[in-house]
Amino acid sequence: MTNFFADIPQLSYQGADSDSDFAFRHYNPDEVVLGRRMEDHLRFAVCYWHNFAWPGNDPFGGQTFQRPWFGDTMEHAKRKADVAFDMFRILNAPYFCFHDADMRPEGANFAENTRNLEEMTDYFAAKMEAGGPKLLWGTANLFSHRRYMAGAATNPDPDIFAFSAATVKTCMDATQRLNGENYVLWGGREGYETLLNTDLSKELDHMGRFLSMVVDYKHKIGFKGAILIEPKPQEPTKHQYDYDVATVFGFLQRFGLEKEVKLNIEQGHAILAGHSFEHEIALAASLGIFGSIDMNRNDYQSGWDTDQFPNNTPEVAMAYYEILRAGGFTTGGTNFDAKLRRQSLDPQDLILAHAGAMDVCARGLKAAAAMLEDGKLEAARAARYAGWDKPEAQAMLHSDLDRIAGDVLSQNINPNPRSGRQERLENLVNRYL
Amino acid sequence: MTNFFADIPQLSYQGADSDSDFAFRHYNPDEVVLGRRMEDHLRFAVCYWHNFAWPGNDPFGGQTFQRPWFGDTMEHAKRKADVAFDMFRILNAPYFCFHDADMRPEGANFAENTRNLEEMTDYFAAKMEAGGPKLLWGTANLFSHRRYMAGAATNPDPDIFAFSAATVKTCMDATQRLNGENYVLWGGREGYETLLNTDLSKELDHMGRFLSMVVDYKHKIGFKGAILIEPKPQEPTKHQYDYDVATVFGFLQRFGLEKEVKLNIEQGHAILAGHSFEHEIALAASLGIFGSIDMNRNDYQSGWDTDQFPNNTPEVAMAYYEILRAGGFTTGGTNFDAKLRRQSLDPQDLILAHAGAMDVCARGLKAAAAMLEDGKLEAARAARYAGWDKPEAQAMLHSDLDRIAGDVLSQNINPNPRSGRQERLENLVNRYL
Amino acid sequence: MTNFFADIPQLSYQGADSDSDFAFRHYNPDEVVLGRRMEDHLRFAVCYWHNFAWPGNDPFGGQTFQRPWFGDTMEHAKRKADVAFDMFRILNAPYFCFHDADMRPEGANFAENTRNLEEMTDYFAAKMEAGGPKLLWGTANLFSHRRYMAGAATNPDPDIFAFSAATVKTCMDATQRLNGENYVLWGGREGYETLLNTDLSKELDHMGRFLSMVVDYKHKIGFKGAILIEPKPQEPTKHQYDYDVATVFGFLQRFGLEKEVKLNIEQGHAILAGHSFEHEIALAASLGIFGSIDMNRNDYQSGWDTDQFPNNTPEVAMAYYEILRAGGFTTGGTNFDAKLRRQSLDPQDLILAHAGAMDVCARGLKAAAAMLEDGKLEAARAARYAGWDKPEAQAMLHSDLDRIAGDVLSQNINPNPRSGRQERLENLVNRYL
Amino acid sequence: MTNFFADIPQLSYQGADSDSDFAFRHYNPDEVVLGRRMEDHLRFAVCYWHNFAWPGNDPFGGQTFQRPWFGDTMEHAKRKADVAFDMFRILNAPYFCFHDADMRPEGANFAENTRNLEEMTDYFAAKMEAGGPKLLWGTANLFSHRRYMAGAATNPDPDIFAFSAATVKTCMDATQRLNGENYVLWGGREGYETLLNTDLSKELDHMGRFLSMVVDYKHKIGFKGAILIEPKPQEPTKHQYDYDVATVFGFLQRFGLEKEVKLNIEQGHAILAGHSFEHEIALAASLGIFGSIDMNRNDYQSGWDTDQFPNNTPEVAMAYYEILRAGGFTTGGTNFDAKLRRQSLDPQDLILAHAGAMDVCARGLKAAAAMLEDGKLEAARAARYAGWDKPEAQAMLHSDLDRIAGDVLSQNINPNPRSGRQERLENLVNRYL
Ligand SMILES: [Co+2]
Ligand SMILES: [Co+2]
Ligand SMILES: [Co+2]
Ligand SMILES: [Co+2]
Ligand SMILES: [Co+2]
Ligand SMILES: [Co+2]
Ligand SMILES: [Co+2]
Ligand SMILES: [Co+2]
Repeated sequence: MTNFFADIPQLSYQGADSDSDFAFRHYNPDEVVLGRRMEDHLRFAVCYWHNFAWPGNDPFGGQTFQRPWFGDTMEHAKRKADVAFDMFRILNAPYFCFHDADMRPEGANFAENTRNLEEMTDYFAAKMEAGGPKLLWGTANLFSHRRYMAGAATNPDPDIFAFSAATVKTCMDATQRLNGENYVLWGGREGYETLLNTDLSKELDHMGRFLSMVVDYKHKIGFKGAILIEPKPQEPTKHQYDYDVATVFGFLQRFGLEKEVKLNIEQGHAILAGHSFEHEIALAASLGIFGSIDMNRNDYQSGWDTDQFPNNTPEVAMAYYEILRAGGFTTGGTNFDAKLRRQSLDPQDLILAHAGAMDVCARGLKAAAAMLEDGKLEAARAARYAGWDKPEAQAMLHSDLDRIAGDVLSQNINPNPRSGRQERLENLVNRYL
Repeated sequence: MTNFFADIPQLSYQGADSDSDFAFRHYNPDEVVLGRRMEDHLRFAVCYWHNFAWPGNDPFGGQTFQRPWFGDTMEHAKRKADVAFDMFRILNAPYFCFHDADMRPEGANFAENTRNLEEMTDYFAAKMEAGGPKLLWGTANLFSHRRYMAGAATNPDPDIFAFSAATVKTCMDATQRLNGENYVLWGGREGYETLLNTDLSKELDHMGRFLSMVVDYKHKIGFKGAILIEPKPQEPTKHQYDYDVATVFGFLQRFGLEKEVKLNIEQGHAILAGHSFEHEIALAASLGIFGSIDMNRNDYQSGWDTDQFPNNTPEVAMAYYEILRAGGFTTGGTNFDAKLRRQSLDPQDLILAHAGAMDVCARGLKAAAAMLEDGKLEAARAARYAGWDKPEAQAMLHSDLDRIAGDVLSQNINPNPRSGRQERLENLVNRYL
Repeated sequence: MTNFFADIPQLSYQGADSDSDFAFRHYNPDEVVLGRRMEDHLRFAVCYWHNFAWPGNDPFGGQTFQRPWFGDTMEHAKRKADVAFDMFRILNAPYFCFHDADMRPEGANFAENTRNLEEMTDYFAAKMEAGGPKLLWGTANLFSHRRYMAGAATNPDPDIFAFSAATVKTCMDATQRLNGENYVLWGGREGYETLLNTDLSKELDHMGRFLSMVVDYKHKIGFKGAILIEPKPQEPTKHQYDYDVATVFGFLQRFGLEKEVKLNIEQGHAILAGHSFEHEIALAASLGIFGSIDMNRNDYQSGWDTDQFPNNTPEVAMAYYEILRAGGFTTGGTNFDAKLRRQSLDPQDLILAHAGAMDVCARGLKAAAAMLEDGKLEAARAARYAGWDKPEAQAMLHSDLDRIAGDVLSQNINPNPRSGRQERLENLVNRYL
Repeated sequence: MTNFFADIPQLSYQGADSDSDFAFRHYNPDEVVLGRRMEDHLRFAVCYWHNFAWPGNDPFGGQTFQRPWFGDTMEHAKRKADVAFDMFRILNAPYFCFHDADMRPEGANFAENTRNLEEMTDYFAAKMEAGGPKLLWGTANLFSHRRYMAGAATNPDPDIFAFSAATVKTCMDATQRLNGENYVLWGGREGYETLLNTDLSKELDHMGRFLSMVVDYKHKIGFKGAILIEPKPQEPTKHQYDYDVATVFGFLQRFGLEKEVKLNIEQGHAILAGHSFEHEIALAASLGIFGSIDMNRNDYQSGWDTDQFPNNTPEVAMAYYEILRAGGFTTGGTNFDAKLRRQSLDPQDLILAHAGAMDVCARGLKAAAAMLEDGKLEAARAARYAGWDKPEAQAMLHSDLDRIAGDVLSQNINPNPRSGRQERLENLVNRYL
């Protein structure tokens, strides 16, 4: 145990009336909700990147965090891992997530990167066997290093495609070695800054090939987890190919991968694409490609990705409602791809940010479960579409324009609209919150 | 000839130095650009709706326009048509576009709507034969009447689906009768106001069936034009299913319609979806579904659809550049789905708005053509991706992760990035403008 | 009593566990919060416009509501008033608000408008004396009629300025006659569509004069209420002069009116201007110009004013927290300038929308009060700035750059940043929600 | 001369038909426009920060530029200055701008910062005397170092206020030593991340005091230039106090500084605040606080500050039109606070970006001048407001509501609206472009 979090106790459930900052008020892992332990519903994961590798910089300012593990050596990387696993323990987190670039120092070339990654993977494995959390997903960071500035799979330079593909292979290997339950791809630079220098067709084709190779490799090595794509419309690039759920669905179909790949949906990215979080979840579920979530919000008054911890229970409840309606998580979970505000300098801030977020999620989940269990909302929804259950409606749906026009004419079909009852349903939702 | 546009002369090309307001300074129909007459490149269409049916209202104010043809009778509809064809003639417009609801009075039921539409179609046909413009596209207005408030194809009520399908049939018939070159669907209410009352899966399925029936009917009646979908992300609904080009592509694939349906892309809608106009055109072209454009802009400081006439030549040039790169229009064209500002009360405003827009488009087209002809921009683009022309790059692209990782290791592939040269290319573009 | 709301009972507080749709779960008028009855804290007002005059149209569709009182006669206006006062009674609303154009038919000229307004004012007065609610504020609609299309006070035509000024006079008279507690100005068309035809300086000067006359007239007639401006950045116009709180403050100072005029702040307008609701309230309070609120939200994914009923308790709580910190309402109150979704056709929808909104506000108020009473948040805020309480800090603040530079040098002042503790405070807030 | 720009010739005007990349096509310093040399109109400045100090990082990626002068020593700082003055010469730039943090290495404390700044100021002075450009403005970077993470003048810690004030003093000294024509304050961290930990009133008061001290110090040292504030609504902070022109005007009035301080307006910041660039310029001019511009654009599809070089001539023309209407620059000028895209790695990119921007500005200026000279647009504007020139209109404007209401009644004033002619005016503008 390091002494970074000295004096911070391991968190436990103490109920809503607890006066302690370092406690869960709502997250009670063993509480059963809809027949499943809360921990098994929520499947919380703590991310390695924002918590342990980000120095606190923003576009107008440099490092604010001063962490004892900041540095470029394997020693630093191990010290960082020690602190990270301390934090996982304090939070009682069942899962974590990583990018290769967070866990190992950058080497001089691919060989050195791979050696560093393998050594750190072993180091992680030992900690996990010693009682650490499980791995929700691993991924390769194909966007921070300057070689990726014009993309990885979509780079104009085939050597960079190659470097990226090789790197993904090593990260999939590491993920499997650590029994990861998913492997994620976030194409942060797969997009463009200007159409003027971009061959859109070529880049999309290359991206399709890249993903196909990832899927093939998964099968080759017998990786049992899911391959997930995380959509985001823009930032860092002006346009990102994995814009949103609908866009990725079209891309997957085009390359015949819609049965092979699912989505990791982040609230902040949904907002940047002009959607609500629950929309993106519901759409993915409807299309059969829902996988996992990154439960971190954006600020509604900021036009960039703020990656903040969730704090609005009603919003979170609507997200879990769509997840529960879709049957809950299978391989996926609730990852906090969230970062502290850069002014939150203290070790305590790291712990409290997660504790608060976990409580907000627990409250949201319980509200969503109650709403689903009561069934009033689903009953109202079903009633609204009940007309379609009639055989003649189904027959009409499977006929043709000529026939329908004839029927409308002969039966003088002249329908009146019915209230959509939005406010009534919004009131209903508020009963559970 | 009506006397609404009395004293306004028919417009003709008079060159950039003309001092007349009622002249084309840049649009010269017979001028040959890249081997094609300018008129045949641009294929301008004037829309019926905004010009002749919109009363000038907005969410905070009522009618501002006082047109002699406003009214609900067939007499009014014919008077409106008379003025419209006057305007087409004054503008020398080769095409026009219509919604059923613009050209005929609303009837008490489907039968009456159909009779009104048929009578007006005959009235139009006579005018077209007498030297009027051709029909670029027809469409059904399935969003203004209160019956459509919760959607047409995606309505919870099957009777409204039926009414919509029957109406589309009559509009396709009218379009064919008038030798329309395309038939458009804009799903202005195909979406939702709140997820709480929405069955996303059912609605998307119904929308797929609806579109399939449209395609079947096209083949049944031997309509030779293209079926076009016009994407828009939102407004009037909070979420619209035809969000953007990528979304519609996914939808078309899902229902096996990606070879049957193309897109009508509007600049304003591109902007609302977070894209540039040229992005949407380039993407549609890359996916093989580019059809036609609505050349009307939004205001960048307003978050709703302002449907203004184009006035920024550099923007317009980039749109035509992507169209020319894709081979130019086939059945499609340049429709002005644009409306006057509601303060622009005078008949002259209607004419001048179009004249200015046509000139801006002509300048944009000529700049785009020059840029394409010179070839410097395409040469720079090709050079950036030249690495992919090598056989070893193509071999790599079609290999697998294992093989690539081996090669990166054995050859110590360690690529350096190259400048993307964005500013240099932007300067280059400005040479043609 | 009309029969429009037949079968809808008068609402009363029944507690959170009530199973009735037509009840308050949280709004308990007589419950004492921070020493004041809840009704006196919240001072709810129902607006006349959206509820009784709006036909349900939007930019892409026409009327959806079919109300028996729709029509242009005084008979219709009185029938409308009858229903409105029924609704006020059902909701137990202590206040209402009106625009002249909602309550009287549009006449052929100013004289007729005035007569209609006076007759309806008498009609209202009788109802109010018979036990109806009080008037929170009145206002003139200077944006719907086509004469106002280019502004009222800022119109290029002095006759329209005159018509507007005369109309405001009659509305101030009506407001005083009805013992209104405030008079509001919303400059929906005071702005521009294009700078090209706008004389910014002249328009701002005229607007300043107009407001000065309003203030003078208030004093002349001895109106005891507050004059309020409602900021909004845009929509209907591209740019609106009363952009946001800070802009209006600058305007008021320029014309020497910052002690005479306060603000009516709407959440939706705050969002359109890029602010949170609580920001606008806190800023107005800090500048001494906080007056009243319009408690209606926008949709975060829509770029226009959706004027929806509030439904997110945490958001509402933060607004009331700033209001309570500022001492609570004096003449102001909580107006719902909210409208039903246009699909919400039923009389019940009107009642339920308000009932839900009032409950959300009550929950928000109670949470805010608890948070303020506990004092933890204010204690943390004070501690953060405690350094400024020291005499040497105050001395420094009132010295000069030279002196300060000397001190920094001589004392080698080299400060270290301290954590801003944002997440900890967000957790704290969630304890009260 | 360094060899960083080896092989890049000094740029000169070669006319629109030049085929060289390294030439001005439109910027001809000695060409006379509206009686003034183009150089004296535009007063171009090259900024030190983005060009020489920014490493190419963004929120998702690190350094891309590899410049020989990157490093923390005075040697590096001088090498950087050598290259910078080379670039100024190549571009024939009449002005440059700097932040202290760009030109000197960060020291261990204020004393060391000051020594470094003074030494570099001397180094700059020598270069300027040897034929380098003049200084348009200097400024202090009070946002990058971690000490400023919670603001400078508005920091909760008085020691940081002190450090900031002392630093500004040294930067004003340096600016005066270098004969700077303005001194700029950009409050990048003067704002908040969360209202929860913010004392808005205190922070605004401290900011007012800070600015007053700056103004006092200006007078004390006899600095002849203007003090300028650069508004920006957000980024890096969630809310920035200097939101936009109108907000800063209100702030200046509150502290009695509206005659002492002017504004430096950036296009990108205007856009982030929901305004057009020309709006912000026109408003500042109307309020008497227009000072200078940062001519760098944002991408309309990105919600953050992209600081790109201008490339759309029509946009730029409208900005210069408002500047010319206001009488042109006095102490201000056209600063490019613009940065290369991070993929633009080559020395050539730095030169070409500026060359293209200068040409776009020259074209914009010439179009604006022609438009102003022809006078058609101003004549149309004046005609629209001509009614206000009449004595009775002025009398009405200076009367009162009672009197006006009487006149409207007695004269039956019942005005009809007139066309705003927006499209006609937009066409007119396009004649000059
Ligand atoms: Co994110
Ligand atoms: Co994420
Ligand atoms: Co549109
Ligand atoms: Co359109
Ligand atoms: Co509103
Ligand atoms: Co309002
Ligand atoms: Co900027
Ligand atoms: Co700037």
